[in-house]
Amino acid sequence: MERLSIGTNVFVYPNPVTLLGTMVEGRVNFMPLGWLSRVNADPPWIGVGVYRGHHTARGIRENGTFSVNFPSADLVEAVDYCGLVSGSGTDKSGVFECFFGELKTAPLISACPLCLECRLVRTEELPTNDWFVGEIVASWADEACLTEGRPDVRKMNPLLLTMPDNRYWTVGAEAGKAWGAGAGRVKSEKDRA
Amino acid sequence: MERLSIGTNVFVYPNPVTLLGTMVEGRVNFMPLGWLSRVNADPPWIGVGVYRGHHTARGIRENGTFSVNFPSADLVEAVDYCGLVSGSGTDKSGVFECFFGELKTAPLISACPLCLECRLVRTEELPTNDWFVGEIVASWADEACLTEGRPDVRKMNPLLLTMPDNRYWTVGAEAGKAWGAGAGRVKSEKDRA
Repeated sequence: MERLSIGTNVFVYPNPVTLLGTMVEGRVNFMPLGWLSRVNADPPWIGVGVYRGHHTARGIRENGTFSVNFPSADLVEAVDYCGLVSGSGTDKSGVFECFFGELKTAPLISACPLCLECRLVRTEELPTNDWFVGEIVASWADEACLTEGRPDVRKMNPLLLTMPDNRYWTVGAEAGKAWGAGAGRVKSEKDRA
Repeated sequence: MERLSIGTNVFVYPNPVTLLGTMVEGRVNFMPLGWLSRVNADPPWIGVGVYRGHHTARGIRENGTFSVNFPSADLVEAVDYCGLVSGSGTDKSGVFECFFGELKTAPLISACPLCLECRLVRTEELPTNDWFVGEIVASWADEACLTEGRPDVRKMNPLLLTMPDNRYWTVGAEAGKAWGAGAGRVKSEKDRA
């Protein structure tokens, strides 16, 4: 296999796509967010990476809250629109119908199959970005997207993002059971031992 | 739409799947990792979330380095195996053929279409997990997985993971252009203004 060095500004393949919800100066705002991850198991903490200049970062600092909303692929045009215009110059509060749960400053998107409400617990100021860590204090799922009470990715039909080619993708076929697909090899090793 | 509260231990839909490479006490080790994200744009920093008790966390602390390897879906059995056995009790150094780049303690997997070498820049000790932030100091791609010099997710065929249903997935169809799909709405608004 021919291996090429492709530099250092390399991204995750692929990123999930979410809409990060905030209130900024009392107005609902959303931005598409692909830089996020669960960071702690117990309590359930999630981190979100936001360029420090973004309007959204201001809202999180103002209120100490944010929401993480998982859009389905049929919302791709509205999701992308939210990334093309800044809340500093454009009122995005009407793009999605919203509701509120436990936190009064974490707007949740009615059309999204899964929405998380987060309370800020840590802020890491990195050179160009803020890494905000929030505790998930509640989550709201569209009943039609659940299977046995759990979010079902086939029903949610979420979006993925690759950079720097800047393309959205959907989730494809199931590829195996996690903590399961490799069990045969564990058994073989035990049998040999 | 009927909305149900599904608690607070909710995950990202979906997580990317990588193999986190380390040297622990001089031995190559890999664990599957779905909790990761780019966290800073410039310099290029990536964060990885590891349960503190994991053998891998020890290796990162020991050497201040780690690798992030993106396996293609045909490696699912070997990837999953690495999550079923701990490097503390099982030598996983022979599971994959490895090579080294700039860092001598960040093992890279020959069979993976994309491998990143990272030097630890920050460690955040969270309640149950460590959040290690590394600077990407080099990356290595299989030439066959590039299109115009960039990683092509269709050629890489990476894995995704959903929790707590614990299933792997592949990437499906393209769903639109990022920073593009919503451009029509921006134009309509400008035309109206």
